Amino acid sequence: MTAKILDGKKIAQDYRAKLKKEVAVMKAQTFTPNLTVVLVGNDGASLSYVTSKKKAAEAIGMSSDIIKLEENTSEEEVLKIIRGLNENPQVHGILVQVPLPEQINESHILEEIAPEKDVDGFSPINIGRLYAGVETFIPCTPLGIMELLKHADINLTGKEIAVIGRSHIVGQPVAKLLTDSDATVTLLHSKSKFLKDTLKRSDVIISAVGKPGLVTVEDVKPGAVVIDVGNTVVDGKLRGDVDYEAVKEVAGAITPVPGGVGPMTITMVLNNTLIAAQRLVEKQKN
Amino acid sequence: MTAKILDGKKIAQDYRAKLKKEVAVMKAQTFTPNLTVVLVGNDGASLSYVTSKKKAAEAIGMSSDIIKLEENTSEEEVLKIIRGLNENPQVHGILVQVPLPEQINESHILEEIAPEKDVDGFSPINIGRLYAGVETFIPCTPLGIMELLKHADINLTGKEIAVIGRSHIVGQPVAKLLTDSDATVTLLHSKSKFLKDTLKRSDVIISAVGKPGLVTVEDVKPGAVVIDVGNTVVDGKLRGDVDYEAVKEVAGAITPVPGGVGPMTITMVLNNTLIAAQRLVEKQKN
Repeated sequence: MTAKILDGKKIAQDYRAKLKKEVAVMKAQTFTPNLTVVLVGNDGASLSYVTSKKKAAEAIGMSSDIIKLEENTSEEEVLKIIRGLNENPQVHGILVQVPLPEQINESHILEEIAPEKDVDGFSPINIGRLYAGVETFIPCTPLGIMELLKHADINLTGKEIAVIGRSHIVGQPVAKLLTDSDATVTLLHSKSKFLKDTLKRSDVIISAVGKPGLVTVEDVKPGAVVIDVGNTVVDGKLRGDVDYEAVKEVAGAITPVPGGVGPMTITMVLNNTLIAAQRLVEKQKN
Repeated sequence: MTAKILDGKKIAQDYRAKLKKEVAVMKAQTFTPNLTVVLVGNDGASLSYVTSKKKAAEAIGMSSDIIKLEENTSEEEVLKIIRGLNENPQVHGILVQVPLPEQINESHILEEIAPEKDVDGFSPINIGRLYAGVETFIPCTPLGIMELLKHADINLTGKEIAVIGRSHIVGQPVAKLLTDSDATVTLLHSKSKFLKDTLKRSDVIISAVGKPGLVTVEDVKPGAVVIDVGNTVVDGKLRGDVDYEAVKEVAGAITPVPGGVGPMTITMVLNNTLIAAQRLVEKQKN
């Protein structure tokens, strides 16, 4: 059996086409949703990320701005800029690109973003709302993974799921979303002793480690769904955690790298920005 | 082999003796830590809980107040009272007893409590800080469980742990703390298909369901540590989730019900209140 390929590029394209229609309706009726990205410093990879977010927002009809700050910008200055964006009614989604330079405390910055504009869902109050079951923004990579799973023809209720990687950006929140979907989740990490046994009995494997070759064909139960969040550059090429070529011969469904989870993450930033703008419209109505 | 009994009553007593000494030092040097509990309505069980919290606080030298409000108090009124407590420098810990009457939205109330006085650790911003790895108050039952485990003579690194129950009050945060302690956690719940298999291979079982008889002697690996958070009244007696009499003959360590997790929860409320007061002293110094 060859796995169904979960083509993130295509799924993201279809999803963005749907968002584009909603943005057009919103622009006709009210205003243009705006995503503003704050970038501190001159990291090349970071600049390329924020540029692609801006382009993606504009491609679906949103407006998007990049606020580029010098490497040596003080924390207080960044906080002041965020306060300005919080108060600006023409800005609906705010992203601060990480990592930040050493002089800036990341959690201070994230706590300053107004919860209703925190489209990454990384501010503590929004993370807390997620766990408390209150309206929030779901972090983009976990949300993108959930969207991909909808295309994997699997009912999550009662399924055994192995999540590898315990970061609060991917592993932990996706474990939370999967638990909410009635799956039974085991959260694995570098100190786990029976990683291979756990993978072998799992109906779904989600690997978010950044270690090419971690998940081999021997680890995968025939028919299992494999989502690869790994994202490592090896010899100039992007590689996931999963031995894709071999695993796709036994899995029921699998994401490629690149073109799997990656395109979904940016799509969900756009999704959350639209939601932020729509919530503002609702609020203005009341 | 008969299990080591994790005597929560005794462990809590020792812990409170330690807190009492720290409170005495604080009173001599600065001020008396205060825990204020807000109770809305006339639920008998709730009144008994808040009274025992007040008594426990006073027993270790803290001051404690109960603000008793009518059943029909409006949400706005409760919010106003919380704002007053937030601003009152003589109040260091604030608890709002749940459940609240229907007209009051619990999450609105919890979000209003100043994070630095939220000693239950239930406000979204504090839950979020827990997941983001930022200074916070750890919810009291999970914190009490971690303290009990210190007495179980087990090194958590790499251990397989089954947590039963996915509430955001116990199951989810204790899973998070255990993952942080390098254990491999499987979070089980009512929709889990292989609950018994998972229990049987686990080094630690934490059951927080409220279903007497859920964990039987057949489910427990010899030598495993069993923490029973169950708390169900059956024929006037408090019962846990675990078949205690049989399981204690095979487990390595086990908590009784009553006298296991229960006494630890209130102890951790006191612990967090002292921390809140200490953080205020530190803040005033700077």
